[in-house]
Amino acid sequence: MTAKADTPGLLRLLISCPDRPGIVSGVSRFLYEAGANIVRSDQYSTDPSGGTFFLRMEFLLAPERREGLAERFGLKVAEPFGMTWRLWDADRPKRISVMVSRYDHCLLDLLWRWRRNELGAEIVMVISNHLDLREDVKLFELPYHHVPVEKDRKDEAEARQLELLDGCCDLVVLARYMQVLSPEFLNRVGVPIINIHHSFLPAFAGANPYRQARERGVKLIGATAHYVTEELDAGPIIEQNVVRVSHRDDVDTLAQRGADVERLALARAVQAHCEDRVLRHGNTTVVF
Amino acid sequence: MTAKADTPGLLRLLISCPDRPGIVSGVSRFLYEAGANIVRSDQYSTDPSGGTFFLRMEFLLAPERREGLAERFGLKVAEPFGMTWRLWDADRPKRISVMVSRYDHCLLDLLWRWRRNELGAEIVMVISNHLDLREDVKLFELPYHHVPVEKDRKDEAEARQLELLDGCCDLVVLARYMQVLSPEFLNRVGVPIINIHHSFLPAFAGANPYRQARERGVKLIGATAHYVTEELDAGPIIEQNVVRVSHRDDVDTLAQRGADVERLALARAVQAHCEDRVLRHGNTTVVF
Amino acid sequence: MTAKADTPGLLRLLISCPDRPGIVSGVSRFLYEAGANIVRSDQYSTDPSGGTFFLRMEFLLAPERREGLAERFGLKVAEPFGMTWRLWDADRPKRISVMVSRYDHCLLDLLWRWRRNELGAEIVMVISNHLDLREDVKLFELPYHHVPVEKDRKDEAEARQLELLDGCCDLVVLARYMQVLSPEFLNRVGVPIINIHHSFLPAFAGANPYRQARERGVKLIGATAHYVTEELDAGPIIEQNVVRVSHRDDVDTLAQRGADVERLALARAVQAHCEDRVLRHGNTTVVF
Amino acid sequence: MTAKADTPGLLRLLISCPDRPGIVSGVSRFLYEAGANIVRSDQYSTDPSGGTFFLRMEFLLAPERREGLAERFGLKVAEPFGMTWRLWDADRPKRISVMVSRYDHCLLDLLWRWRRNELGAEIVMVISNHLDLREDVKLFELPYHHVPVEKDRKDEAEARQLELLDGCCDLVVLARYMQVLSPEFLNRVGVPIINIHHSFLPAFAGANPYRQARERGVKLIGATAHYVTEELDAGPIIEQNVVRVSHRDDVDTLAQRGADVERLALARAVQAHCEDRVLRHGNTTVVF
Repeated sequence: MTAKADTPGLLRLLISCPDRPGIVSGVSRFLYEAGANIVRSDQYSTDPSGGTFFLRMEFLLAPERREGLAERFGLKVAEPFGMTWRLWDADRPKRISVMVSRYDHCLLDLLWRWRRNELGAEIVMVISNHLDLREDVKLFELPYHHVPVEKDRKDEAEARQLELLDGCCDLVVLARYMQVLSPEFLNRVGVPIINIHHSFLPAFAGANPYRQARERGVKLIGATAHYVTEELDAGPIIEQNVVRVSHRDDVDTLAQRGADVERLALARAVQAHCEDRVLRHGNTTVVF
Repeated sequence: MTAKADTPGLLRLLISCPDRPGIVSGVSRFLYEAGANIVRSDQYSTDPSGGTFFLRMEFLLAPERREGLAERFGLKVAEPFGMTWRLWDADRPKRISVMVSRYDHCLLDLLWRWRRNELGAEIVMVISNHLDLREDVKLFELPYHHVPVEKDRKDEAEARQLELLDGCCDLVVLARYMQVLSPEFLNRVGVPIINIHHSFLPAFAGANPYRQARERGVKLIGATAHYVTEELDAGPIIEQNVVRVSHRDDVDTLAQRGADVERLALARAVQAHCEDRVLRHGNTTVVF
Repeated sequence: MTAKADTPGLLRLLISCPDRPGIVSGVSRFLYEAGANIVRSDQYSTDPSGGTFFLRMEFLLAPERREGLAERFGLKVAEPFGMTWRLWDADRPKRISVMVSRYDHCLLDLLWRWRRNELGAEIVMVISNHLDLREDVKLFELPYHHVPVEKDRKDEAEARQLELLDGCCDLVVLARYMQVLSPEFLNRVGVPIINIHHSFLPAFAGANPYRQARERGVKLIGATAHYVTEELDAGPIIEQNVVRVSHRDDVDTLAQRGADVERLALARAVQAHCEDRVLRHGNTTVVF
Repeated sequence: MTAKADTPGLLRLLISCPDRPGIVSGVSRFLYEAGANIVRSDQYSTDPSGGTFFLRMEFLLAPERREGLAERFGLKVAEPFGMTWRLWDADRPKRISVMVSRYDHCLLDLLWRWRRNELGAEIVMVISNHLDLREDVKLFELPYHHVPVEKDRKDEAEARQLELLDGCCDLVVLARYMQVLSPEFLNRVGVPIINIHHSFLPAFAGANPYRQARERGVKLIGATAHYVTEELDAGPIIEQNVVRVSHRDDVDTLAQRGADVERLALARAVQAHCEDRVLRHGNTTVVF
């Protein structure tokens, strides 16, 4: 979908700002004069008159020409246009910490894709409140941190988790982690968190979505990968997927069929995030 | 999916009863001894021990052998097993009345399929609270009854609608009819009602689902065909379908993309109902 | 997916050229200095080093500023970069002639979408080698030209068709037109032709694809919308879609299920073409 | 989709025979009188007059009542109706041998599903012409037989493979095994073989289907799970699946996206086969 993460010398620029004429021209001229070759560009405007403008550019730039690039861009382009922006060196893969409880399918799927270099990212550790998946993770030569979450002592567990995560990663992925994270945790973690919810949100938010789906008699079940925010199961959606089911599928079968869409939706969302293709827009996302 | 509605001499038997051994054997032996040839059979049990058993059989039986068939079946098979059952002669297509407001896509899709003999049913009239679609319907040589629904006088409109529907049809289809039907109407109409809701229920029940979908930032939108019950948008689901959307799609575009899945989901549900492939099970459906 | 065709003052620029640094910068600077506001931009490069670059820009430009725009762009930008390019005024909807034989579903679907202003285009005439669909077309107040194609006299029929089409349209759509067009016709018609083939090409090219699909026992059937070239069923693919089928579906049922994906694939392809979102690349397409 | 493989006491009966009245009645009466409780029944007839009839029944029968059941059924029911039939004890899971070359995704997906008890089958060994996946397989405590296939000495390799397989399994799965098996091997192996082909057959049969797909510019790519027959890539299709792609996807990306549908299509086909839900019908399949 995008230039390979292993194309050497690739940079990614992400911008959002109030829309007005001249943005694309200003940015592309700046990059051209800096010696860059734009490889891919995507843009979206909520409204050309008075809306918000989103831009993502991938460009090649020789390392010797990068000095001071960010500063100059900030001064000459970003400031005049009032841009919120970030620049990411694609040679530096994002570092991911995975949090998981007992279900293995989402974790194993991510580990496989990582091994096959599909993620465009590095998995650096796994944190779990259970021991079940320790042996699986060991095979990938990854640290597996067991942090049990005892009733009424979640704050201690979260303190330990924050200590482990501190400075070590660019993204936390909840691969069927079955504990609700506190607002304090979310405030302090300092990196985005992606969760996979096992329903087609906003349908069946909360607990036991497959049971809810069975009781409501839906004909399709789904999975939703979203950024975690303070409001449970209500953060910005990155990716969704569904699969057809029937009256014959009991709750266990729904969970089994659902597992296939969960891991696919989560993998797609993590890939998109790690390739800097997701921009937040209020409580929604722009995915290029 | 099933023997053609135009196969002459085809009958359909639908059964639900407490599950226990001997049901299939009892029914199929009865039919065999009556001279029938079973063409298709579907069954489903919620639980072989103490659950509910659902059976649908299509069989061929010469007209001269049909006399007293239903009575004998009731006495010899249905009563001993405590069956709820019905027998339908497939040579007699179901008669459909369509209720519609201003959107044309679901109505026109049904009319076309009817003309192409895809529905396995007859459309007998259209009732609308607006005049917009009168010319379209006229081309199909169908009665178009204009019954305006004035504020605070819905009861008068419903009385007129019931009068029109009385004894004329086996099914009412709400093809984007934008008025809520009263519990009295539902009680008195005497035939099933299928509605198309323009969201993937239970997400975005109620008004303006495409606006809700846009605000929530979902990545798929859907449509749900369901039987109408007193609780709004909560009746048994027959068919659902989805289509992928993106941040680029505004509310109007969502409505346009959604229209394609609405008409498909509604057509599939109406076909399934008219071929007697839908059995209700509490607030869910078994669709064979 | 794109700025509304009815946004007044919208222009679309489509470019392909050898890739090299500075293209986006050159084009966007030219447009900015001309007073344009870029509303949407898409680009794709087969290879940043030595590949082909494709660009599509939608921009707003007041009518009084358009004089000489194309000439200046040709001189200052297109020529130095060796561009193949075209500029299209979105206020001028593309004019479509539809050719059809007996099947109604693709034609009717296009006519409906046109009436609902979904196509972003005008249908200007229908040409058919049969009389079957004349009454349907009449309702849309469109000319219906009956040009029978007699065996061994196809050249006369094609001469008549070319006469009707001459200068009247920007696109010809074959909405299940069951005659093969001669190379002479293709050379002389002067506008692109989009065909809908009732299979998932390249599987089941040629005649009777649903029969072929049934015999091969496939579990999905499809439809393919493509540009017509001299080699039958081998032109650049614009859009494809599939639907799940089973052993229960005979050839007639496959045709019925397939009709739903045919009309959807054709509508999507025609929309994409009429919004200038399709660029040809050898025997494939880039669809933005 | 079906009664759990772990429901104790479950038997499955599969039948095909010339269609005529009385088959369902005869079979279900026999089972009822034998003390069985039919849990699920599916049937299909190619044509009620003179066609072929297919029946699959799942029933519960206490072990003490099973003695002589097959013999009695053969004598009293199967012979008079001219049935081809088999009876399978669901308590005895099918034993699978997997053959693989270097790609890991299909093999690992099967191993995971096996570990989660999703397959309803036992994997008993892995045979590979390469060493690449030995460590992965070791973790599942399965024998990994390395049988290199040298040019011009395939017959020796196949002799060794047949020796390993002899009497050990009920199904061979080719999970991206990149060697063509000889007709002699197919004749001698004595169990069905399921292969996954990485295209939407019959499109792109043969080598390098993703390269072929890229060159043809298709908008969807697929995977096909089928029984292996002497004619390469032409055996009866069990399951197919597709995923949408675009001009941006190069051959490597197509292979990556395709891997997700390959493993899903293969898993579904293996599950269906192991639950005895697939009946062959000439060169096609009936999948209940």
